[in-house]
Amino acid sequence: MRPSGRDLGQMRPVTIETGVTKHAEGSCLIKMGDTHVLCTASIEDRPPPFLRNTGLGWVTAEYGMLPRSTGSRMRREATAGKQGGRTVEIQRLIGRSLRAGVERAALGERQITVDCDVLQADGGTRCASITGGWVALRLAVNKLMQAGDVTSDPLGDPVSAVSCGIYAGQPVLDLDYPEDSVAGVDGNFVMTGGRMIEVQMSAEGATFSRDELEQLLGLAERGVGELAALQLAAVG
Amino acid sequence: MRPSGRDLGQMRPVTIETGVTKHAEGSCLIKMGDTHVLCTASIEDRPPPFLRNTGLGWVTAEYGMLPRSTGSRMRREATAGKQGGRTVEIQRLIGRSLRAGVERAALGERQITVDCDVLQADGGTRCASITGGWVALRLAVNKLMQAGDVTSDPLGDPVSAVSCGIYAGQPVLDLDYPEDSVAGVDGNFVMTGGRMIEVQMSAEGATFSRDELEQLLGLAERGVGELAALQLAAVG
Amino acid sequence: MRPSGRDLGQMRPVTIETGVTKHAEGSCLIKMGDTHVLCTASIEDRPPPFLRNTGLGWVTAEYGMLPRSTGSRMRREATAGKQGGRTVEIQRLIGRSLRAGVERAALGERQITVDCDVLQADGGTRCASITGGWVALRLAVNKLMQAGDVTSDPLGDPVSAVSCGIYAGQPVLDLDYPEDSVAGVDGNFVMTGGRMIEVQMSAEGATFSRDELEQLLGLAERGVGELAALQLAAVG
Amino acid sequence: MRPSGRDLGQMRPVTIETGVTKHAEGSCLIKMGDTHVLCTASIEDRPPPFLRNTGLGWVTAEYGMLPRSTGSRMRREATAGKQGGRTVEIQRLIGRSLRAGVERAALGERQITVDCDVLQADGGTRCASITGGWVALRLAVNKLMQAGDVTSDPLGDPVSAVSCGIYAGQPVLDLDYPEDSVAGVDGNFVMTGGRMIEVQMSAEGATFSRDELEQLLGLAERGVGELAALQLAAVG
Amino acid sequence: MRPSGRDLGQMRPVTIETGVTKHAEGSCLIKMGDTHVLCTASIEDRPPPFLRNTGLGWVTAEYGMLPRSTGSRMRREATAGKQGGRTVEIQRLIGRSLRAGVERAALGERQITVDCDVLQADGGTRCASITGGWVALRLAVNKLMQAGDVTSDPLGDPVSAVSCGIYAGQPVLDLDYPEDSVAGVDGNFVMTGGRMIEVQMSAEGATFSRDELEQLLGLAERGVGELAALQLAAVG
Amino acid sequence: MRPSGRDLGQMRPVTIETGVTKHAEGSCLIKMGDTHVLCTASIEDRPPPFLRNTGLGWVTAEYGMLPRSTGSRMRREATAGKQGGRTVEIQRLIGRSLRAGVERAALGERQITVDCDVLQADGGTRCASITGGWVALRLAVNKLMQAGDVTSDPLGDPVSAVSCGIYAGQPVLDLDYPEDSVAGVDGNFVMTGGRMIEVQMSAEGATFSRDELEQLLGLAERGVGELAALQLAAVG
Repeated sequence: MRPSGRDLGQMRPVTIETGVTKHAEGSCLIKMGDTHVLCTASIEDRPPPFLRNTGLGWVTAEYGMLPRSTGSRMRREATAGKQGGRTVEIQRLIGRSLRAGVERAALGERQITVDCDVLQADGGTRCASITGGWVALRLAVNKLMQAGDVTSDPLGDPVSAVSCGIYAGQPVLDLDYPEDSVAGVDGNFVMTGGRMIEVQMSAEGATFSRDELEQLLGLAERGVGELAALQLAAVG
Repeated sequence: MRPSGRDLGQMRPVTIETGVTKHAEGSCLIKMGDTHVLCTASIEDRPPPFLRNTGLGWVTAEYGMLPRSTGSRMRREATAGKQGGRTVEIQRLIGRSLRAGVERAALGERQITVDCDVLQADGGTRCASITGGWVALRLAVNKLMQAGDVTSDPLGDPVSAVSCGIYAGQPVLDLDYPEDSVAGVDGNFVMTGGRMIEVQMSAEGATFSRDELEQLLGLAERGVGELAALQLAAVG
Repeated sequence: MRPSGRDLGQMRPVTIETGVTKHAEGSCLIKMGDTHVLCTASIEDRPPPFLRNTGLGWVTAEYGMLPRSTGSRMRREATAGKQGGRTVEIQRLIGRSLRAGVERAALGERQITVDCDVLQADGGTRCASITGGWVALRLAVNKLMQAGDVTSDPLGDPVSAVSCGIYAGQPVLDLDYPEDSVAGVDGNFVMTGGRMIEVQMSAEGATFSRDELEQLLGLAERGVGELAALQLAAVG
Repeated sequence: MRPSGRDLGQMRPVTIETGVTKHAEGSCLIKMGDTHVLCTASIEDRPPPFLRNTGLGWVTAEYGMLPRSTGSRMRREATAGKQGGRTVEIQRLIGRSLRAGVERAALGERQITVDCDVLQADGGTRCASITGGWVALRLAVNKLMQAGDVTSDPLGDPVSAVSCGIYAGQPVLDLDYPEDSVAGVDGNFVMTGGRMIEVQMSAEGATFSRDELEQLLGLAERGVGELAALQLAAVG
Repeated sequence: MRPSGRDLGQMRPVTIETGVTKHAEGSCLIKMGDTHVLCTASIEDRPPPFLRNTGLGWVTAEYGMLPRSTGSRMRREATAGKQGGRTVEIQRLIGRSLRAGVERAALGERQITVDCDVLQADGGTRCASITGGWVALRLAVNKLMQAGDVTSDPLGDPVSAVSCGIYAGQPVLDLDYPEDSVAGVDGNFVMTGGRMIEVQMSAEGATFSRDELEQLLGLAERGVGELAALQLAAVG
Repeated sequence: MRPSGRDLGQMRPVTIETGVTKHAEGSCLIKMGDTHVLCTASIEDRPPPFLRNTGLGWVTAEYGMLPRSTGSRMRREATAGKQGGRTVEIQRLIGRSLRAGVERAALGERQITVDCDVLQADGGTRCASITGGWVALRLAVNKLMQAGDVTSDPLGDPVSAVSCGIYAGQPVLDLDYPEDSVAGVDGNFVMTGGRMIEVQMSAEGATFSRDELEQLLGLAERGVGELAALQLAAVG
């Protein structure tokens, strides 16, 4: 029934390759099916101004799509002169999600910027960014700990994200673009250690019942479990 | 226990005054406690370019805060040269929410822009904007119907929104600013006719369980029911 | 002869309601007929950089119109990415006018920003902004004096402003929009204590004689006198 | 008493050299003392969009200062990313002033853009721009008439502008920078054929009486008369 | 003598992998040592406005660097609100260089945009972009020819580019970042079929003689020959 | 054969008038035929932030064209909201070229900004800007030396620039606009004391051989020699 032939609760093949750029303190290339996102984590020794002298660190994120990561070429945001509303919304979500899994006092007064750049898009880029972003963050923090700059681990369970939606009347896990572009209801679930960080269910020209929300939550919990295992293996 | 002395599931006093500006096709001033939002709906006879010759209409929204609607003065976005990320995120939510309650073919090839301008803020401005925005939209559509420009009603049940969150370990309804500024978990629920349009639960430096989500959903359903009755009363 | 039926030298009904927002140090809603402007004064403890260590204070102003304050919806300036030329011109006028009535050494090294936001426009918004802006400023300064932060009153007579013009060949006072939109000659007069601060007479596709200027000055003096009395009454 | 040794009612030496660039349809270099402005008039065969099919023409103006036209180098507005408030105000004034002297139906559906670029500034650049701008405009219109594209002359008496102010307690004509920078009261008077187009009197940290306004008007009328004669001589 | 141990006239290892994204009509990932650039070519059926009804096509290019493609993280240009001067300069060079190798009448009224995004930088990104960009362009044109949309091949010999410079007093070929960052003289040579398209020699805080220019030209010719062979092999 | 009747290796008449503005520390108006550029050099006592406490100075340049310096009016960059790509490229070239002729340690911790504003354009504006810019810079440095602020002369031989190209199949020196607009190959050569600073040869829709490059270099060397003599004469 799904264009890809997947079962309702079946994710796309996911791979996470680490150490993909020589400059970044942490990096990975995550592929969720045909969605490919390059994630890097960059450490800066100073926290943002609003955290000076608080003893707390900060994690922030930026998101971008290469102009031809999509089926038809998009205008480059640097040329347009600003980031679009969708970009801003996504990068705020990534940053908020990753911060929920960080003990900021343990990180200390520094900032880690996670850049998530979509090389190829096929649906679910924000979820891939969060999942891959955590891996890059984990690797960067490992470096800080190996160097003795951070002594108590500020990270816990992986932060993972997956999309769910109602496609052709059925709840499905991990929508690809052909599904995403027609689904009236879909959402993103960000979780860590069995608990939720963000739930964003949206209906465009449609609505959904509480019962449907429950089913999607069930699918999301399953998907996130699989992702967390892959993340741990990748940083292993 | 709540700073305002309200019960956990008790909303702030809500009033909706309609017809507050002489120019707009629909308008209201919604007050949810000390949060005051002026909502206007403006009809344009042409749809946006991407809908030309489709027979479909469009509803969009813009959101703004007066510089001194808040405790300390904020920089005016027109001076800053762009809308901030939070503003963009909110106005996209308002537009998406209102469109979920519109039969766009019945509206026909025109656009209605709903402007939500916060005169005074005390938490929950995006929910007040959606709730008041629907009232302004309803009044504007009434005008179109009275003029015979629209013959089949494109609107159904009211679209209403309310915030919930976990404050001091307890699930509470309709957070005001003193609660909102310290709540680690909060969210917004947009509903219509007993079904959901958007669920946006966010944790900042915290997480929440599925069980807590259930409790918040229950509170939200109660609050939205009260708002829908007020909206219907306001539009007569 | 005037669309509103007013006499040539008759102003519209003017009301000034103070204390209209809970956050601002001074605020009022001024209504000159159907022109409604919300004015707030916000105190900042630091002067602008160019006044550091001079002992002098500063008063500045910003002006905005809600998108549907006008007959047809205007584009929001925050969306356009900048303030238009007319906006900039008006807010510079408001700031200059208010500063003319301030003893800046008595104010001390702080800045007061007066925001004038037009909720509904029907001509004369810049004059209403100056007149209402002074009331907000007066209330904010009162707060500083009550707190003992300012000991010598930096304000004197009210600063008041009114428009005059030549409508259908006749000099008229306080033009509303139906007059303003067809008058070839009109202007704004800002005065305090019987003396002038600004005179801005403009002709669009027309000219005027020195004799006509004299007549308009006479009307303006009368109008400003009425406004000053209302301002003093409002601030009690 | 004046820093330059001039009498109270004495203007600086004024010269107007025409035909100073080979590309523009009309051009002049006006020097009012050490204030030097290059004015060009460029004809475009199409009117601005809002005048299509009205039979009316348009005259607009733009103003700029070279970065080192002033005593200390100013930031280039193209680098700053926008025109400052002062620039916008001035170019609106120039355009409005020139249009007051144009019969727009006689001009026909075309646009003339007058660019006024300050090569060297010593006070009074906006007045020099208007006075020189009219000369450039006159020369461009001459070209249209010689080519037979315009048959009825859309221009009448010269449009001329001069500044006046109160310096050291005395009304003075045509302020240079040393006077302008300390004058508490000054203004610009734009006139044509003995009648007024714009009167802009401003006080910064000061006020002025109706009697003083009368005296300044008298000085301005004298100055404008001298300028008009020079303009007519220049266009020959 | 070179930090990498290479001979003066030895290039870094170069690989060109084609077909690296599923959406673009042509694409490759070019690696010149540790400099990695993703190049895509996107076909648009319409030419830019200035070429409508001329029968001519257009090739243009855009260039970007991922924020952490460099040793320390750079600010994202989309966040900064504009492309920097260096970026603009480079993308103009890429477009000009590729167009020199295109028979625009044979291409017909369409536009091909070549995007060059640097995933990892180690010197010579603009040369890698041109060389890889030609490969992506060739593959996209192949598609047009296979579809019968273009019948006469608009492309000829490969367009290739390489940098040369004077490092430690010696002329060297294909500078990497450790060389590039200290070389006082360096330049880029774009060639096709044994002839030159662009020569850009620059000295920062230094100068060079005509004799040195000759030596660098000799090195460049050798390097470009090697690149052309690799390009032809890549497009098979 | 050349539209102007000049010989292949003949430059346009060049004049350099110094001291043309009263404010700038150094200034000149350079005319290369009908190309007229006003160059000013402005001294600032502080270096740019990246040079603080290094003992080194900085020279930078900005470039602009008056809107009607060209055959048809160009949009003012301050209105467009940013400098175009061509402008940025040119001013980077001017700055780089001038810095190649400056001993930055001798200049000391200060910055000199050279502004090159094109009053009238007829081809070769960037070369005229470099040549005239050096004269302005020389005059400003003279002032520093006369004041004793700089003791060892940071400048040496003049920095001069000239364009060459292939017009109608022939190598020509110092292209004017009628030549420049049709030449397929042209370039700019910046030299000092017989050595090269920049060579920028570009082909648009064409290529050139090494032999042609040699011929153009020969022409450029001759032209630059003439310019250097004029520059030295101008600065006395």
